[in-house]
Amino acid sequence: MKLLIVNGPNLNLLGEREVTMYGTIPFHVYLEQLRQKYTALTIDYKQSNHEGELIEALHQAHGNYHGIILNPGAYTHTSIAICDAIKAINVPVVEVHISQIMAREPFRKQSFISPVCKGCIFGFGLDSYRLAIESFIQ
Amino acid sequence: MKLLIVNGPNLNLLGEREVTMYGTIPFHVYLEQLRQKYTALTIDYKQSNHEGELIEALHQAHGNYHGIILNPGAYTHTSIAICDAIKAINVPVVEVHISQIMAREPFRKQSFISPVCKGCIFGFGLDSYRLAIESFIQ
Amino acid sequence: MKLLIVNGPNLNLLGEREVTMYGTIPFHVYLEQLRQKYTALTIDYKQSNHEGELIEALHQAHGNYHGIILNPGAYTHTSIAICDAIKAINVPVVEVHISQIMAREPFRKQSFISPVCKGCIFGFGLDSYRLAIESFIQ
Amino acid sequence: MKLLIVNGPNLNLLGEREVTMYGTIPFHVYLEQLRQKYTALTIDYKQSNHEGELIEALHQAHGNYHGIILNPGAYTHTSIAICDAIKAINVPVVEVHISQIMAREPFRKQSFISPVCKGCIFGFGLDSYRLAIESFIQ
Amino acid sequence: MKLLIVNGPNLNLLGEREVTMYGTIPFHVYLEQLRQKYTALTIDYKQSNHEGELIEALHQAHGNYHGIILNPGAYTHTSIAICDAIKAINVPVVEVHISQIMAREPFRKQSFISPVCKGCIFGFGLDSYRLAIESFIQ
Amino acid sequence: MKLLIVNGPNLNLLGEREVTMYGTIPFHVYLEQLRQKYTALTIDYKQSNHEGELIEALHQAHGNYHGIILNPGAYTHTSIAICDAIKAINVPVVEVHISQIMAREPFRKQSFISPVCKGCIFGFGLDSYRLAIESFIQ
Amino acid sequence: MKLLIVNGPNLNLLGEREVTMYGTIPFHVYLEQLRQKYTALTIDYKQSNHEGELIEALHQAHGNYHGIILNPGAYTHTSIAICDAIKAINVPVVEVHISQIMAREPFRKQSFISPVCKGCIFGFGLDSYRLAIESFIQ
Amino acid sequence: MKLLIVNGPNLNLLGEREVTMYGTIPFHVYLEQLRQKYTALTIDYKQSNHEGELIEALHQAHGNYHGIILNPGAYTHTSIAICDAIKAINVPVVEVHISQIMAREPFRKQSFISPVCKGCIFGFGLDSYRLAIESFIQ
Amino acid sequence: MKLLIVNGPNLNLLGEREVTMYGTIPFHVYLEQLRQKYTALTIDYKQSNHEGELIEALHQAHGNYHGIILNPGAYTHTSIAICDAIKAINVPVVEVHISQIMAREPFRKQSFISPVCKGCIFGFGLDSYRLAIESFIQ
Amino acid sequence: MKLLIVNGPNLNLLGEREVTMYGTIPFHVYLEQLRQKYTALTIDYKQSNHEGELIEALHQAHGNYHGIILNPGAYTHTSIAICDAIKAINVPVVEVHISQIMAREPFRKQSFISPVCKGCIFGFGLDSYRLAIESFIQ
Amino acid sequence: MKLLIVNGPNLNLLGEREVTMYGTIPFHVYLEQLRQKYTALTIDYKQSNHEGELIEALHQAHGNYHGIILNPGAYTHTSIAICDAIKAINVPVVEVHISQIMAREPFRKQSFISPVCKGCIFGFGLDSYRLAIESFIQ
Amino acid sequence: MKLLIVNGPNLNLLGEREVTMYGTIPFHVYLEQLRQKYTALTIDYKQSNHEGELIEALHQAHGNYHGIILNPGAYTHTSIAICDAIKAINVPVVEVHISQIMAREPFRKQSFISPVCKGCIFGFGLDSYRLAIESFIQ
Repeated sequence: MKLLIVNGPNLNLLGEREVTMYGTIPFHVYLEQLRQKYTALTIDYKQSNHEGELIEALHQAHGNYHGIILNPGAYTHTSIAICDAIKAINVPVVEVHISQIMAREPFRKQSFISPVCKGCIFGFGLDSYRLAIESFIQ
Repeated sequence: MKLLIVNGPNLNLLGEREVTMYGTIPFHVYLEQLRQKYTALTIDYKQSNHEGELIEALHQAHGNYHGIILNPGAYTHTSIAICDAIKAINVPVVEVHISQIMAREPFRKQSFISPVCKGCIFGFGLDSYRLAIESFIQ
Repeated sequence: MKLLIVNGPNLNLLGEREVTMYGTIPFHVYLEQLRQKYTALTIDYKQSNHEGELIEALHQAHGNYHGIILNPGAYTHTSIAICDAIKAINVPVVEVHISQIMAREPFRKQSFISPVCKGCIFGFGLDSYRLAIESFIQ
Repeated sequence: MKLLIVNGPNLNLLGEREVTMYGTIPFHVYLEQLRQKYTALTIDYKQSNHEGELIEALHQAHGNYHGIILNPGAYTHTSIAICDAIKAINVPVVEVHISQIMAREPFRKQSFISPVCKGCIFGFGLDSYRLAIESFIQ
Repeated sequence: MKLLIVNGPNLNLLGEREVTMYGTIPFHVYLEQLRQKYTALTIDYKQSNHEGELIEALHQAHGNYHGIILNPGAYTHTSIAICDAIKAINVPVVEVHISQIMAREPFRKQSFISPVCKGCIFGFGLDSYRLAIESFIQ
Repeated sequence: MKLLIVNGPNLNLLGEREVTMYGTIPFHVYLEQLRQKYTALTIDYKQSNHEGELIEALHQAHGNYHGIILNPGAYTHTSIAICDAIKAINVPVVEVHISQIMAREPFRKQSFISPVCKGCIFGFGLDSYRLAIESFIQ
Repeated sequence: MKLLIVNGPNLNLLGEREVTMYGTIPFHVYLEQLRQKYTALTIDYKQSNHEGELIEALHQAHGNYHGIILNPGAYTHTSIAICDAIKAINVPVVEVHISQIMAREPFRKQSFISPVCKGCIFGFGLDSYRLAIESFIQ
Repeated sequence: MKLLIVNGPNLNLLGEREVTMYGTIPFHVYLEQLRQKYTALTIDYKQSNHEGELIEALHQAHGNYHGIILNPGAYTHTSIAICDAIKAINVPVVEVHISQIMAREPFRKQSFISPVCKGCIFGFGLDSYRLAIESFIQ
Repeated sequence: MKLLIVNGPNLNLLGEREVTMYGTIPFHVYLEQLRQKYTALTIDYKQSNHEGELIEALHQAHGNYHGIILNPGAYTHTSIAICDAIKAINVPVVEVHISQIMAREPFRKQSFISPVCKGCIFGFGLDSYRLAIESFIQ
Repeated sequence: MKLLIVNGPNLNLLGEREVTMYGTIPFHVYLEQLRQKYTALTIDYKQSNHEGELIEALHQAHGNYHGIILNPGAYTHTSIAICDAIKAINVPVVEVHISQIMAREPFRKQSFISPVCKGCIFGFGLDSYRLAIESFIQ
Repeated sequence: MKLLIVNGPNLNLLGEREVTMYGTIPFHVYLEQLRQKYTALTIDYKQSNHEGELIEALHQAHGNYHGIILNPGAYTHTSIAICDAIKAINVPVVEVHISQIMAREPFRKQSFISPVCKGCIFGFGLDSYRLAIESFIQ
Repeated sequence: MKLLIVNGPNLNLLGEREVTMYGTIPFHVYLEQLRQKYTALTIDYKQSNHEGELIEALHQAHGNYHGIILNPGAYTHTSIAICDAIKAINVPVVEVHISQIMAREPFRKQSFISPVCKGCIFGFGLDSYRLAIESFIQ
């Protein structure tokens, strides 16, 4: 099975900034752990701070992946365009968040992304990504 | 590790009613599968249609379980009392939903439960429960 | 035809309290009148102040009744769980209210129950129940 | 007893248009059935697409009818003037709707008419009118 | 092809009042220009300041026209009854506005009409009507 | 000076209905008193329950009156079309209400009419009309 | 008859500032005109920029005046305390505004004062005060 | 005098959980202190996590107590049914809260209970109960 | 112990106006009763209709009193400045209201004062002040 | 005349995805048809999924085109920056949408773009673009 | 150049209370520093806790100062009267706040003052005042 | 000291477009003036119309600058991602706006950026940037 992990804005700083909320492990280190744990899977990775690039990553996934694990970061709450991109492709998308966004500012409770995703996994730290992989290999 | 699964109102009908949304497997059958898969775990189970009984199940879990997997059903959107019960105990709670509640009626987007849970897993059918177990055994 | 009348919270006080709004006839007296008027029908009755018991009464009606006449009392405005219970069963439900709830406090205009009922009858005093029966015997 | 049925905008199309929602029986046919069923009653009828004519029909009913059965159609949700007309007359008015308006668009949940009516009957198809008649002959 | 242009309240004043916003050409002059330009078409015309007459114009168009060009004027923002009339007929309706209503008062941004129209054309002055005709002859 | 008094829906019942709120004097009697008091003025009168007729009364006043005294009744709160009609004519309009609408239901606090009127006079009973005349003869 | 005119904040600047909206006549000059016109009346005057002083002026009017003409200025929209003061006295209060406040910023449409006043007169420039006097001498 | 103290959901945990907010004294210990302080009073006690049981406790108090001291816990903010139960009985109810609920989450500022209570006492810790008793023995 | 009672706008009229809601005892008489009942306490008193004076009374209480009993009257609902003054001093403040403000107009449910007070006591008539004193002498 | 068509996010997928809503014709094929139909016009084309690139396309159009046909896709509902870009250039912009956005999710009814456009054309499928061209060649 | 600094409610406590948020320097000390730094300027100062006095300070500044630096404190969020006073004078006003009000309670985000000020400077501690002076001497 | 000025969307047009609101000086000319005035400072500059590039400019400033002066343009009101980027870096950010955004459209009053900035400076034209520099060199 071929999966694509897509991380949105500011997630290139994982492990470097706001470590209290997001932990100290850089994402590429964690990704390597995932790949070693799930050797039967191909796990590709894309990060971008650009809404347009995230849209294009989703477009290009069409026909090339069995599933997408998407952490849209702050675009979760503001991007109808990413919502539309998900609807336009035939690949199931699981939305993940590292922090428990439901316990943060009120504006983080609105999601344009969740209604078009197969499922949502919030609040487990980096382990949210592993659980999303688990959801695909079921 | 000892886990408690708590299911809220109408979830006693799983496998019997609204099978398009919730599937045809009765929960006790699924629970047996989970226990066979995770033999190292003790997985207890409680279902109630009564808000008060759910509160009391949470109270009694204090000191007796390492984690709770809670599907509050419709009380998710209306029960501040269950929210308070979760805050009052020291057991981490993972909120699960079988359906993708974010894609349903607007009143299902408000959750009094999510902000006090360790994490949330929505939309994976019964597999939401397995993913919640996975989150504890990490 | 077999019908079930289900009355929600505080309706055990009918005929005793707030007689200006609800009248002076106890419900069991009125029920007897209904049974005498509609001798061809079986009319069962359940009252509870517990949201959970009302949910269970609805569950148990499945397969056992041709119709349900439900006065959810104040749970009309707060219970998504009862709404879900109605959706989960195959028995048509008619919602009745004794008083004209549309002319009372603003919070009594929101109903989680009406959208999942076959029909609504409000404001005719106890006669609302008779009209609901009439709607089934048409 | 003398009753007046008043139908509002678009209800002249009953039986011709949107038959899935409103059925295939023209109102004049149904009205004849009602009159044959309730021979002791005089049942007059008025339909208009004009808010002003509906107001005037209500005015003229004062002193001439024992009750009015009003289906205000879409004016239910927008006409304070009809609300005022009902308050200005001494004839009890029962509001009826053919469809279950509570299960339709959100703007159909607001009613300026219900708070000034004796009672409301929604969702029973054309049978809503018969139930309204029943409410008067009690 | 047979088209019907329906103009709502205050549009009888076109060319006479508020010429800065609506221009100085009376509608009947403009209509003549349209007919001369589209000689293959029959273009009928109806203006009314009465909501009820607009509803009836729509009803009567059923079966008699291939399309309707409707400028509902201020009823755009307040008339659910006209919305229902459009839904009740099988003629495609194109909504036009002379001014750019989206740049005016906030209450002009709400439309009960747009969601039931085939398409919307706003802001091109009288040319909005020609564009609507173009949309039918495509 | 030539003035036009325009009364909206239900105001044909003045003196007959809801006398506690509106008083017992029929409007034609009061109008006669006004004409006798202000003999130097021509005071014409129009009442209609039809929004469209009120719009047309305003249209026709253009060029024929020095001022209009408008009691739009319940259309105050719902009619953008009357608002547009006032903007389309060059005659100053004074809005009057018999009752103190600000002390009634919340929906009576919204006015589409006031912002386009020269002035507003509310709550003085029938004397509101005299005060409006006074505002013109200043 | 003894009347008290009470002017609120910034109205000491009448005739000096914002003359486009409020005119060029100082209030004391206008007041003199009023007194000369209504010689049978005693017309006292109080202006204050202090909410507390306005409250006290209202308190002291109790038992001393037949009526109060109150222009609360911006306190119209923010002062529940002045509203309470009006309710606490037995003197009828007429609210006046020089400008047409209904045509200004949205926050000027909310009034805590109007619901407790006998009547309202808005938008006639300084003539609003004369009309208020007229309302008392009727 | 006979008083009934009724405690709602989660208040069985007083003294055990969230001691920073609620203190370390179990309620039964505190109750004993109250009884020793007010020996002339009979002070009965009921705690339940079930909305239905709280409703029934209120029903049963009718005719049996001079006053009720009610801490509805989280049901304060969600239970219209308890509000209705209070209205249905003739016993004065004083609402108490241990914490200062006005300084907590926004959803704790809405109360369905306060408007039907004789008085409210919030924020004094357990001493709120003593103050409520004082209010009855005045 | 030294306590300061601070009364806000219109409370100088206690015992004179709106006696149905506020009773017939002037506050100075009641105050004397309190002082005689609590002879061990020094109870000072300040009333003002001026928001600024109330702020200054709070400032001056700093270091001079053990507690403040504040009835902010209508400023409860509009004064962020008094809220800030309470936060700026180290004296605990108990908010009292004579009437049950929760049962009155909706705008009286918003309080800028409650969240910064130690506790709230509403609805016990003048006895609210005694209960507040009791809360300090505990 | 020189026109620029600008398409926003996800519109690169036209003809490939969601063909039920958007049709099966790729935009470049349709564009060729337009160019063949309007040979007197130069029609340039730009598509981007990047908000920043759309802004820059608008900037660069200044001085180079007689008109812009803009389909902002989902940025219609979220981009104030594109709104500002339109205001900053002197080229008239016509907003087009392929689908009838007014009949879709509520969040698609808010447009930051419409108020700064010369006109709007919604819901005619790809023909919306032709109608926009027609609006320029009038 | 002659400048006036106006400080609103509670700002007389600067340096004494809430020193974590506002610092430990009394304003008169800071003012002396400003005067020594800007010897070419006359810097006058006024503080008041009274809305009315702030209004009058603004009135009196007209014609006497080149600019006003206004920290309205909590009146920022509640005083339309101060807003009106600023509009009534010809002196440019710069609004300053010591704390970053945008990061505090939601009700501190609403400002009636900002829209009528030349500019705003928030969050720089006492240095906000120096920056405001800099804005005038540019 | 090393400062970075970051300008958001459409600000590349400064001096060219909308000169009434933004002035006629291109930013690079103004920047040169700033550098000549503050020779002790290094002032770097970045402008982008791309939300993603602004995020990355903020990321890269971490560790390289003592302060950032950010004019986020229209992204102020829509970008939670830029808000997150500011929180993720340790460089103090001052938000500036050239125009008085508080006096413009309502949607410009919401800022996702202000709450995470050290301070805000709005409305001084290009001088807002100089004041921001002043705030750092204090």
